[in-house]
Amino acid sequence: MPRLVMKFGGTSVANLDRIRRVGKRVGVEVAKGYEVIVVVSAMSGKTNELVGWVGDAGGALYDAREYDAVVSSGENVTAGLLAMVLQSNGIDARSWQGWQVPVQTTSAHSSARIEDIPTDNFDAKFAAGMKVAVVAGFQGVSPEGRITTLGRGGSDTTAVAFAAAFGAERCDIYTDVDGVYTTDPRVSSKARKLDRIAFEEMLELASLGAKVLQTRSVELAMRYKVKLRVLSSFEEQSDNAGTLVCDEEDIMESNVVAGVAFVRDEAKMTLISVADRPGVSAAIFGPLAEAGVNVDMIVQNIAEDGRTDMTFSLPVDQVERAEKAVRDAMAREEINFHDLIADKDVSKVSVVGIGMRSHAGVAAQMFAALSAEGINIKVITTSEIKISVLIDRKYMELAVQALHDVFELEKG
Amino acid sequence: MPRLVMKFGGTSVANLDRIRRVGKRVGVEVAKGYEVIVVVSAMSGKTNELVGWVGDAGGALYDAREYDAVVSSGENVTAGLLAMVLQSNGIDARSWQGWQVPVQTTSAHSSARIEDIPTDNFDAKFAAGMKVAVVAGFQGVSPEGRITTLGRGGSDTTAVAFAAAFGAERCDIYTDVDGVYTTDPRVSSKARKLDRIAFEEMLELASLGAKVLQTRSVELAMRYKVKLRVLSSFEEQSDNAGTLVCDEEDIMESNVVAGVAFVRDEAKMTLISVADRPGVSAAIFGPLAEAGVNVDMIVQNIAEDGRTDMTFSLPVDQVERAEKAVRDAMAREEINFHDLIADKDVSKVSVVGIGMRSHAGVAAQMFAALSAEGINIKVITTSEIKISVLIDRKYMELAVQALHDVFELEKG
Repeated sequence: MPRLVMKFGGTSVANLDRIRRVGKRVGVEVAKGYEVIVVVSAMSGKTNELVGWVGDAGGALYDAREYDAVVSSGENVTAGLLAMVLQSNGIDARSWQGWQVPVQTTSAHSSARIEDIPTDNFDAKFAAGMKVAVVAGFQGVSPEGRITTLGRGGSDTTAVAFAAAFGAERCDIYTDVDGVYTTDPRVSSKARKLDRIAFEEMLELASLGAKVLQTRSVELAMRYKVKLRVLSSFEEQSDNAGTLVCDEEDIMESNVVAGVAFVRDEAKMTLISVADRPGVSAAIFGPLAEAGVNVDMIVQNIAEDGRTDMTFSLPVDQVERAEKAVRDAMAREEINFHDLIADKDVSKVSVVGIGMRSHAGVAAQMFAALSAEGINIKVITTSEIKISVLIDRKYMELAVQALHDVFELEKG
Repeated sequence: MPRLVMKFGGTSVANLDRIRRVGKRVGVEVAKGYEVIVVVSAMSGKTNELVGWVGDAGGALYDAREYDAVVSSGENVTAGLLAMVLQSNGIDARSWQGWQVPVQTTSAHSSARIEDIPTDNFDAKFAAGMKVAVVAGFQGVSPEGRITTLGRGGSDTTAVAFAAAFGAERCDIYTDVDGVYTTDPRVSSKARKLDRIAFEEMLELASLGAKVLQTRSVELAMRYKVKLRVLSSFEEQSDNAGTLVCDEEDIMESNVVAGVAFVRDEAKMTLISVADRPGVSAAIFGPLAEAGVNVDMIVQNIAEDGRTDMTFSLPVDQVERAEKAVRDAMAREEINFHDLIADKDVSKVSVVGIGMRSHAGVAAQMFAALSAEGINIKVITTSEIKISVLIDRKYMELAVQALHDVFELEKG
């Protein structure tokens, strides 16, 4: 029988009424003849409650193994409840906790990676008549037999990993939005839902702040060619609802640009007139990484008289930490510099699309559109399928709307 | 090193402040040189929340395996949190869920019995420097690898089972009362805390409604000679605080009667003038058991003219169910009877004491005391160390006080 993986996030299982709706939705797929693996998150709010407690209990130097043992319990609750709901609908179902499958992971607690998912156990149960395996997402078990978790959003990754392991026809990610949009509808009223998007594009969008899917789950889906579908758990669904995240080849025609993404609260730091000698980059960015600063864009100006300006972007709430790390590093390494300045009022806006590979002039078109609106570009970085710029935060919405227009994203 | 088992119930771990107090208390025992196994319940309220959800999810014919998977999660949370608190106090501790030990149980979900607790794992960890193993109470794992629970109050049983398996010097049950009393202090102001009580007495008191310890945990402690101590988690403790539940031989001197117990909301049913022929008792009490009625006392009058009256007591909220079961059974078996009457306004009062074995006249003394207060006795049953009577509910407090006085329980 064909197999399907369905994943339901926290808001989709927030209470028993919603879990019953999930049960109905799963029943529809069972009726179509699928053997279904359902991956569930904790009821919304529950994980935060648990995280709050472990924060209080453990202090700064908490034991990540205990953290995982506590925080994973929310998913176990949902899995059991959904199995009961399915059973009361007459569907042969049972719940599985990570260690029962077992979902074998590394020992990197709180950010473990799935190493293996043995299939014999489920295969035997499906052969014996089980219709639905309900799996507690986000968790696994380490080689030492301790409970691990996969990090925030890890249930997406669990779902994709099961889809890969069991050769599922598709992995449906049910969430509180009805698909992936060309941009955030709250910023542009012209935002359009995409029917299909390539893995590579989704990866860029996910890492750029479109919070629909966890980045790692998309990477995994791309590697194992798992067809991912993002759709709403709050609407009646047809067979081609939502957005299909798939291989480039499966997308017949596409716009050059698939979407416009943004990160509102960024900051820009510039180290002015620093000695330009070998090792200076390492001397700056090594300590920043150690201080836990998530440096994103990095630009270095052409050196003049053996000195250069070094600019990088980072989340705005990490500026103080970054400033201290850089000044300490410069003093320790005896590297001379003129000034360190921070601009806390910038946003990042990006256009993403696999079409860029074959279409020249996308960057020029982007810069012209921003210029036409009088928006000054502060930093630019590009990849094969993405162009990102830093601009003043007050222009962010305007920039998104202008780019959405110029690349005609409202048209399918 | 000597070993100690400490068990903390739901109110003792109701929030993080209380869990920190528990951490301090455990630290005191570690400082004395004990290797400690701590058994914890779910934070108070949590198990009820989970039970409510599974009730909603599963309906009447719920799957007890899923019930157990859900309901056991509360203990896992407490175990992890306490381990973190202990670690932040500099104590080498870790948490263990039932399946990790593993606490091997029968497959009787929701009322499983512990079959075995392998000790190698803990022994190795203790030898390697671990000071405290925090165990999630109330749960285990079945031969099929499913999570089981031991029934309400099961954490007491977990604690005693660990104490037996590891040859612990003592099993301290921390609760919200400071020990076992001669009777409920809310009913008699003269109630006195007992320093020691025999297992047999505790068993009778536990099953008679003194809710300090789960009956099964006392049975287990008696069988494996585990010294049980009941004490308060809300008071500073000395070495001989609380009440020690121990072997008869360990109690030097004791009163003839150890305590007066009661069950307030009982009912009495009488089947009047039923045909007295072989099998009639089975015809009545079989169907009652099947209907889930907890019949307690049973009295049959002397038969006259081949007919007899049959009286039994039961919890007051099971009267309707019992009435239907009895009438159906009588009709099905074609057993003739005159009437079936129920008295819903009775209470059970009992005196318990191992001293009764060697002291005659306790029953006479009890009946005289009740008679002196004008209290009519409706049903009497006796065991080797217990005498129970059913009386009108309105006299319950009076009866308890009178019996407490006549057996001089206020004196040590």
